Amino acid sequence: MNTEQFAITPRWVICVDAENRVLENHAVIVNADKIAAVVPWPEAQSRYHGIQVIDLPEQALMPGLINAHTHMAMNLLRGFADDLPLMTWLSEHIWPAEGQHVNREFVADGTRLAIAESVRGGVTCFNDMYFFPDTIAETAKEMGIRASVGLIALDFPTVWAQNADEYLSKGRELYNDLQGQSMITTMIAPHAPYTVSEEPLRKIAAMRDSLGVGVHIHVHETAVEVQQFLEQHGIRPLARLAEVGLLDDQLAAVHMTQLIDTEIEQLAQTGSHVLHCPESNLKLASGIAPIARLLDASVNVAIGTDGAASNNDLDMLGEIRSAAFTGKNAAENAASLPAEQLIRMATINGAKALGIDEQTGSIEAGKQADLATIDFNRIELQPVYNPVAQIVYSANRYDVSNVWIAGSQLLSAGNFTRYPEQALIDKARQWGERIQSTRITG
Amino acid sequence: MNTEQFAITPRWVICVDAENRVLENHAVIVNADKIAAVVPWPEAQSRYHGIQVIDLPEQALMPGLINAHTHMAMNLLRGFADDLPLMTWLSEHIWPAEGQHVNREFVADGTRLAIAESVRGGVTCFNDMYFFPDTIAETAKEMGIRASVGLIALDFPTVWAQNADEYLSKGRELYNDLQGQSMITTMIAPHAPYTVSEEPLRKIAAMRDSLGVGVHIHVHETAVEVQQFLEQHGIRPLARLAEVGLLDDQLAAVHMTQLIDTEIEQLAQTGSHVLHCPESNLKLASGIAPIARLLDASVNVAIGTDGAASNNDLDMLGEIRSAAFTGKNAAENAASLPAEQLIRMATINGAKALGIDEQTGSIEAGKQADLATIDFNRIELQPVYNPVAQIVYSANRYDVSNVWIAGSQLLSAGNFTRYPEQALIDKARQWGERIQSTRITG
Repeated sequence: MNTEQFAITPRWVICVDAENRVLENHAVIVNADKIAAVVPWPEAQSRYHGIQVIDLPEQALMPGLINAHTHMAMNLLRGFADDLPLMTWLSEHIWPAEGQHVNREFVADGTRLAIAESVRGGVTCFNDMYFFPDTIAETAKEMGIRASVGLIALDFPTVWAQNADEYLSKGRELYNDLQGQSMITTMIAPHAPYTVSEEPLRKIAAMRDSLGVGVHIHVHETAVEVQQFLEQHGIRPLARLAEVGLLDDQLAAVHMTQLIDTEIEQLAQTGSHVLHCPESNLKLASGIAPIARLLDASVNVAIGTDGAASNNDLDMLGEIRSAAFTGKNAAENAASLPAEQLIRMATINGAKALGIDEQTGSIEAGKQADLATIDFNRIELQPVYNPVAQIVYSANRYDVSNVWIAGSQLLSAGNFTRYPEQALIDKARQWGERIQSTRITG
Repeated sequence: MNTEQFAITPRWVICVDAENRVLENHAVIVNADKIAAVVPWPEAQSRYHGIQVIDLPEQALMPGLINAHTHMAMNLLRGFADDLPLMTWLSEHIWPAEGQHVNREFVADGTRLAIAESVRGGVTCFNDMYFFPDTIAETAKEMGIRASVGLIALDFPTVWAQNADEYLSKGRELYNDLQGQSMITTMIAPHAPYTVSEEPLRKIAAMRDSLGVGVHIHVHETAVEVQQFLEQHGIRPLARLAEVGLLDDQLAAVHMTQLIDTEIEQLAQTGSHVLHCPESNLKLASGIAPIARLLDASVNVAIGTDGAASNNDLDMLGEIRSAAFTGKNAAENAASLPAEQLIRMATINGAKALGIDEQTGSIEAGKQADLATIDFNRIELQPVYNPVAQIVYSANRYDVSNVWIAGSQLLSAGNFTRYPEQALIDKARQWGERIQSTRITG
């Protein structure tokens, strides 16, 4: 008996492959960290003798969700300040609190809490942008989740670096330190065109070429930001990115609520990726990225939750629903953005944007076994006419029952296999009390 | 020891009273079906000796949620047809399936499933509109939930009645039969101005006056509907309601995605209520009711999920979030629709629209003990800076831990006290298989 090998036999396998196959009576064979095969159940029985079978007769197995944009450690600031416009929220609440509290311990504890929340919601990979990315990488490794860590950059000094050059040199150092890590990749992560000026952006383009990694940046989050940039620089932020050589198929541009037709064409022509965070954009009243139009133009659109301080959760199933609802309404077409497309945005499209689609994002032989199941044996999810639509329109993060990352089971029947749940809750509560007691504003 | 009396001592009591008080260190005393008192904990200890204390140190107690518009029995058609425009969805999928399957058994089984889903999500009262309202009333009574049952009316024959007069006479009969029921009220429920013509609407106005009940009707759901009505009748649907005498403080108008300024003024002046169903409207790409403007004009706005066939769930906490997100974005103001207002819309505003705000909708002495708790001892809900914002922006229906309706506990630590969960799931699955196997379309 090969103990490294096991079979999962769900009611449905939602492959998210090129044909969007939804298979019944199939087994997914996992061998160590990889999907060894997806085969009809009778064939599995004859080919794989005596392996462990995880039988899930009322469940759907899908690729793990990929949260394409987040700031994990900000979980400790969840609900710290709500019902405020973006710049007030940032400059009067979030930035002062970060200035007071963000250190390695904050980032480690916040990221741990966020990883546990993510895994219970079916997320097997996240793309982060925050201070102390080395700590984020360590924490992801410790907790067994796949991560793309942002090599952050800003013009101004913070707790992580003093100036653009130091950010980039620390980023290069971290990139080197992480070589050989199988589950942690990096993207260069300048905050935004309005906080990272032209010269460092040009250096980032060069760094991208020398390291061969993608670039993860906030772009066109609000109309005011685009307008101010235009007034100060005579061009729109996206044009600045084009000018410095960053508009290409390694660009993952977050938010993009403000897009004109020629920009959509440019994104399509250059193969740039859009990371859509609908709930954050809506809550901050920033607008809605035109995702139906982007997808029609063949732009790769992935989905992220943004940080829990702005959204206020890391619930990717909720985010998919919000993307579907607001996307259909914005397109004035209920038939646009069908459920199958939403699932792709939250899985394989995220993997593409992060440059890891050969490793993860779908259920196909040879890929990493990053998997999640949805349990339909619930009052809230019956009857089931179409499992894919049911996941998008009815399922909820607590309907996620099992999660495997690189073949290792982290969630079993809704329970963590190895995270210390109450200790994580207690730690978060302590941080909340400390941060609340030293609140400067609001 | 008075066994009919007990105290609940949560971390927070979210009263939803006129002052929007959020109390700490308080006890809510329940006596039989009513809230006897809301008192500081030390006072409770001295005044109420030896009564049972339900101590919930990590939880918030709030009024039960009121689902102000739904079609409960349609739970059996959840996910039957998705990603389609309203009229295609209705005329090619939902209406044919209803024609084949809707009978008393369908309504009883679907409503039971929906009530269980509702209660687990913190809903203590729903406002329904569907065939066999007598069965809906019986089912609500059997399951111990508060309900406002729609005395439905249409121009055309259905399984419930042959013509407008028969609908109204059966409605009057049911109204009479339900006199003396403490937890079941009625509203006259003509489907919409485009399906109930002028003469029956005038009769409904007279019936409203004679029975003293409200009127619950779909109005201005889509732009096409408004345009077609205008072409056929020379006036907009809301003007038709004014013309026949239905535009007053007993009108509860559902959807209202299409509203011009003068109509908002008219609604405010007449004291009419708007029942906002954002997720259904978004999913069908019908637009968004201008709720920030309606609330600014002092129109009472309540929230409903619509039926699970269009939304696709009865999750009021999810609906609140969607209302907040899309309402802020539509108003282009992140500070509009603060969390406190959203909770009001899902509780006391619903009670007002249903004409039962003297009985329920807030935690105040003398009201019915319709209560729900949110358990914050979760990775997904920590830390807690503001419990009200946390409920609106982070909590999820499975975070609802306890539910009491008229003082009777129906949910305890997330588990039903007396509903046969697996039997309800199995019954729904059987209906799903039967309906799927006889599918005419799609």
